[in-house]
Amino acid sequence: MSRPDDRAPDRLRPVRLQRGWLDHAEGSVLVEFGGTRVLCAASVETSVPRWRRDSGLGWVTAEYAMLPRATNTRNDREAVKGKIGGRTHEISRLIGRSIRACIDYKALGENTVRLDCDVLQADGGTRTAAITGAYVALADAVSWMRERGLVKRDPFTTSIAAVSVGVVAGEARLDLCYEEDSAAETDMNVVCTGEGKFVEVQGTAEGAPFDRAELDALLDLAAGGCAELTRLQLEALGR
Amino acid sequence: MSRPDDRAPDRLRPVRLQRGWLDHAEGSVLVEFGGTRVLCAASVETSVPRWRRDSGLGWVTAEYAMLPRATNTRNDREAVKGKIGGRTHEISRLIGRSIRACIDYKALGENTVRLDCDVLQADGGTRTAAITGAYVALADAVSWMRERGLVKRDPFTTSIAAVSVGVVAGEARLDLCYEEDSAAETDMNVVCTGEGKFVEVQGTAEGAPFDRAELDALLDLAAGGCAELTRLQLEALGR
Amino acid sequence: MSRPDDRAPDRLRPVRLQRGWLDHAEGSVLVEFGGTRVLCAASVETSVPRWRRDSGLGWVTAEYAMLPRATNTRNDREAVKGKIGGRTHEISRLIGRSIRACIDYKALGENTVRLDCDVLQADGGTRTAAITGAYVALADAVSWMRERGLVKRDPFTTSIAAVSVGVVAGEARLDLCYEEDSAAETDMNVVCTGEGKFVEVQGTAEGAPFDRAELDALLDLAAGGCAELTRLQLEALGR
Amino acid sequence: MSRPDDRAPDRLRPVRLQRGWLDHAEGSVLVEFGGTRVLCAASVETSVPRWRRDSGLGWVTAEYAMLPRATNTRNDREAVKGKIGGRTHEISRLIGRSIRACIDYKALGENTVRLDCDVLQADGGTRTAAITGAYVALADAVSWMRERGLVKRDPFTTSIAAVSVGVVAGEARLDLCYEEDSAAETDMNVVCTGEGKFVEVQGTAEGAPFDRAELDALLDLAAGGCAELTRLQLEALGR
Amino acid sequence: MSRPDDRAPDRLRPVRLQRGWLDHAEGSVLVEFGGTRVLCAASVETSVPRWRRDSGLGWVTAEYAMLPRATNTRNDREAVKGKIGGRTHEISRLIGRSIRACIDYKALGENTVRLDCDVLQADGGTRTAAITGAYVALADAVSWMRERGLVKRDPFTTSIAAVSVGVVAGEARLDLCYEEDSAAETDMNVVCTGEGKFVEVQGTAEGAPFDRAELDALLDLAAGGCAELTRLQLEALGR
Amino acid sequence: MSRPDDRAPDRLRPVRLQRGWLDHAEGSVLVEFGGTRVLCAASVETSVPRWRRDSGLGWVTAEYAMLPRATNTRNDREAVKGKIGGRTHEISRLIGRSIRACIDYKALGENTVRLDCDVLQADGGTRTAAITGAYVALADAVSWMRERGLVKRDPFTTSIAAVSVGVVAGEARLDLCYEEDSAAETDMNVVCTGEGKFVEVQGTAEGAPFDRAELDALLDLAAGGCAELTRLQLEALGR
Repeated sequence: MSRPDDRAPDRLRPVRLQRGWLDHAEGSVLVEFGGTRVLCAASVETSVPRWRRDSGLGWVTAEYAMLPRATNTRNDREAVKGKIGGRTHEISRLIGRSIRACIDYKALGENTVRLDCDVLQADGGTRTAAITGAYVALADAVSWMRERGLVKRDPFTTSIAAVSVGVVAGEARLDLCYEEDSAAETDMNVVCTGEGKFVEVQGTAEGAPFDRAELDALLDLAAGGCAELTRLQLEALGR
Repeated sequence: MSRPDDRAPDRLRPVRLQRGWLDHAEGSVLVEFGGTRVLCAASVETSVPRWRRDSGLGWVTAEYAMLPRATNTRNDREAVKGKIGGRTHEISRLIGRSIRACIDYKALGENTVRLDCDVLQADGGTRTAAITGAYVALADAVSWMRERGLVKRDPFTTSIAAVSVGVVAGEARLDLCYEEDSAAETDMNVVCTGEGKFVEVQGTAEGAPFDRAELDALLDLAAGGCAELTRLQLEALGR
Repeated sequence: MSRPDDRAPDRLRPVRLQRGWLDHAEGSVLVEFGGTRVLCAASVETSVPRWRRDSGLGWVTAEYAMLPRATNTRNDREAVKGKIGGRTHEISRLIGRSIRACIDYKALGENTVRLDCDVLQADGGTRTAAITGAYVALADAVSWMRERGLVKRDPFTTSIAAVSVGVVAGEARLDLCYEEDSAAETDMNVVCTGEGKFVEVQGTAEGAPFDRAELDALLDLAAGGCAELTRLQLEALGR
Repeated sequence: MSRPDDRAPDRLRPVRLQRGWLDHAEGSVLVEFGGTRVLCAASVETSVPRWRRDSGLGWVTAEYAMLPRATNTRNDREAVKGKIGGRTHEISRLIGRSIRACIDYKALGENTVRLDCDVLQADGGTRTAAITGAYVALADAVSWMRERGLVKRDPFTTSIAAVSVGVVAGEARLDLCYEEDSAAETDMNVVCTGEGKFVEVQGTAEGAPFDRAELDALLDLAAGGCAELTRLQLEALGR
Repeated sequence: MSRPDDRAPDRLRPVRLQRGWLDHAEGSVLVEFGGTRVLCAASVETSVPRWRRDSGLGWVTAEYAMLPRATNTRNDREAVKGKIGGRTHEISRLIGRSIRACIDYKALGENTVRLDCDVLQADGGTRTAAITGAYVALADAVSWMRERGLVKRDPFTTSIAAVSVGVVAGEARLDLCYEEDSAAETDMNVVCTGEGKFVEVQGTAEGAPFDRAELDALLDLAAGGCAELTRLQLEALGR
Repeated sequence: MSRPDDRAPDRLRPVRLQRGWLDHAEGSVLVEFGGTRVLCAASVETSVPRWRRDSGLGWVTAEYAMLPRATNTRNDREAVKGKIGGRTHEISRLIGRSIRACIDYKALGENTVRLDCDVLQADGGTRTAAITGAYVALADAVSWMRERGLVKRDPFTTSIAAVSVGVVAGEARLDLCYEEDSAAETDMNVVCTGEGKFVEVQGTAEGAPFDRAELDALLDLAAGGCAELTRLQLEALGR
């Protein structure tokens, strides 16, 4: 059983990172993993939340959302329903935790960066595309801050990229599209640093439970995918 | 006092209508009025709201929203705040009313089209860009329905376009950008049919109240702007 | 086709402005436009919202609501539903904007007046009755403030009145009652200053779109109606 | 220490029950206990809530609310806050329970009466005025139903009236105004049937706890007050 | 007709007050009235709400809630519904008022005690069990504060206990279980001080209205029940 | 650096599973992992949610919550705040997904089991204790259903247990208490079937990112812990 787009099991979909997609944001990236399209905007505030004041430390936070018609059938707006759903909450928290793993708060100083990841179109892997794009948007926002002297030294301790992997039709595959994601027996999202260490590993048995060998195979694939994404991030940033 | 982009008072900003921006939606348009960029998605449902069942009539509805970083400074998400603000409500209602003015519900049959207008970037005139783009997205969704036999005959009685006009520095101007909008003494949004009749006229004195002569000048400008937008809509639709 | 109450097309319904209807409020008016009955209360606060502090400027704000049985059939309470509907939001914003057009914030000083317009009974034109009554309640609240030395000089730059007009059965009519409002092809709310200048013009095609000639006829009627309402306001205020 | 209006301790304030205050409601009463003014509207529905369908039984329910400027200083709207406060909930429940005590659901048939009690002005005793007025509004709504054959036989098993009593400055007093209510050591609301039996007794020690003798004195006063209110209700109803 | 557990009409169910059920709370009691089981936790804050600052006075507040499966059939969570129901509000307010009646705020100093009463299992009388347990939890929290010098002198002016009484099958009974409560014609909750004075008397005719003789019989029973509960509280506190 | 309770790194805290803690629930367990105490209640409904009707399949769902004073300092109630937080949402979803992995929906038939996991006291590992207890409560609810013939054959395909592991002070440790959890560099929750396969693996770098060797060590520890918990579950169920 081949993949819907005939990719090799260890290949990413075409990835595109368009920097500066927005005129106003201090950093912004339109990230595409195949048909998945996420607009990541980084907004700088020269202050920190109340609970962090006078600590000398900065803060980074993230929010994830999906446009109502990002998906195949329309979803009601969370703003109209008057509350944020569990999935949205969970992904926002994941993005925030992941991105915070690459920041030295002391070097950031008492500044906050808010990362807004809005899914314009969804075709699987929206949360991993969002993390991968958010890192680049944050990098641009940090450059903006350094140019203005708001941040004196490099606050990055590493870079962050993320990818989904899963077992589909008995085969471990990298970067699942929606069709594969729906059919996956096991589904895993992995967030890595630029050095290939793990920041988050979230594996879920959608069908049958998985054993250690399957887990190992998925982790191998994910590590390879994150390494490739790291290369693409650096390329996009012109490094 | 010339305009920020040196336009003549009766000239629109560069307008762009990109059809088919989304893969899943039955109709979709990325509309740009200068720096204002609105993604309009039309979603078809082959049913109508409960209060309209068994009437033989269709329904069209609209929702407007802005991404948090569409603007110069970030706005909190309405989904996070847990309620939709007055401005959002008002504009959603305006778009819905305006677009419904071009539809023969009987010809549409018991189908609903939901129009989602999400502002990706705001630089003045977001509601009028949304209306102008929503008409085109609706046209594509209706074509989609006709191809599938869901709609038997043309439900359009006319086309719909909208533009903002205002008095800035004592001068009546067409299609205000954000900078002009903030400085306007009078601000008016006008929605017209393809034949140049009025669907909505909403004028507000932001500074001093306005007299009948000013009102007349603004209506003249708006009628011209809508005629030009109608031409661009037809062009985009390949007619 | 004559009007339900046999009025001439350019005649207002009987208007009544009862001042001092409440014992506690600094200004209060029970305003009646025929069967429409709105209680307008003006509440003075000797401070301004946070975003306006230390500006030396005052603020005026308005909220509109309807009792559940103001209408022919009962409506659920917005407090019970847990959110304010779009129509309520829109009208509250309209009243606030309209009334603010007659105030010199500097003369008002750092004081806030809150105008509560609660519809006790609805028979068409509730928003225009609310605006017309709110001006009188505000006038009384300002007198109360001047008597106490809270306001040193007259903060009014003009007076404000509002009326609805519409095309019913092909005829332009002033001050529509509910029955006419429901049948109107075009519906317009106009807010004028005491000098007959426009503060708000909100015209909507409920049925067929309208042309410039119809618009002109409606504006003429509205200007006449507002002039008469201005006279009645002055009379009520004993001027 | 005499009462603010020099009443004898066992005297009600002037009570006024204006029937038919609203044109649309099936029953409506503007009830006044001194400066307290509550608009009670009874709305008839010829159906019952889902949980009561096909039982052959009717239902009566009540909602209580206060206009923002009913009180000496303005209160924020519960609709704006997005939730109903504990006090409002509690009083709505009390009114509903109290009024339901006079109804034979079988005789009412599968009809619902909704009682809306909106406090236009508050000067103590708003919940007892609301109950007293709601009974009269309900009586009118029931007459309306009987005239239309919706109800075949008299569903009233008794009448309902309510009054507040309290210990102020060591003295048991009937029908406290706001000034007395604020100063009361003990505060009690009593709901009685037309025959003088108790439907609700809610006594609260606001200051020092009270003993059985005080409780007895308050119950005596309340029974007398309710008897007088019953007489006024019958008089208003022309019986 | 005997009682479900063959108790005499004037007998309490087995009462158990387990102190120190929680490791973290400054005071905690698992209180049982027969099958009713309420966990009362007292939390100390060394500050007071904003409206009470710099008054030298303390504050005591309470919240009541029920686990979803405390009852015979599961109830939806109020947190999931997004709002607190009227019954919960009402009982939280009752517990707070009742407990505040035994405290000298001056002696408490600018400290707040929050009492959380969570019903783990419900079998009638949850609010009265909560009040009775909350007093003991508060006593422990106050001891904790006195040991740490946060409170210098005894802030208790009395003790507080509560019990339900009702007329079931024509008989006045003490401490109703759920089965009796559902069948009661009259239902009354009584809160007393350790000296037998009344703090709250809340009687409701569930079926037929009640007369003074029935009310008197219920008050007698309740006074006896509260006296016994006071004895059990003192015993539990080792006094 | 030894553990706070001197446990070996691969030892669980004392685990206690008290079945039948509630009288009403079809299954209930008070589960303790050291000081962590979670009340798990299983509620049976003989129907399924609307989206699953007429499928012949059952459903299992879970909700997690914490009492306000389960923790060292009091947390505000989510019901009072009017919305469920991200953490609560996330854990409720995790419990539901985990428990659903052991159920054959066809064998369950069109029945729903709702699992309520309420944390009475929190000392680390509340989500893993909840999952471990919920399985046992579900087992009892299923027995209850089989006794009544609601379920014809065993719907369990396996059993489910969960444990937390983490790297603290450079050492991989099993079943972290709160003190260790707060200090962990890496924190992982692992859900296993009775056969030792993985259902969920959720690892997060709280401090420094972790490498494959650390991940492997944690997975080994977790597998051992789940095996021991599986044994204790069977023992509690008397198998």
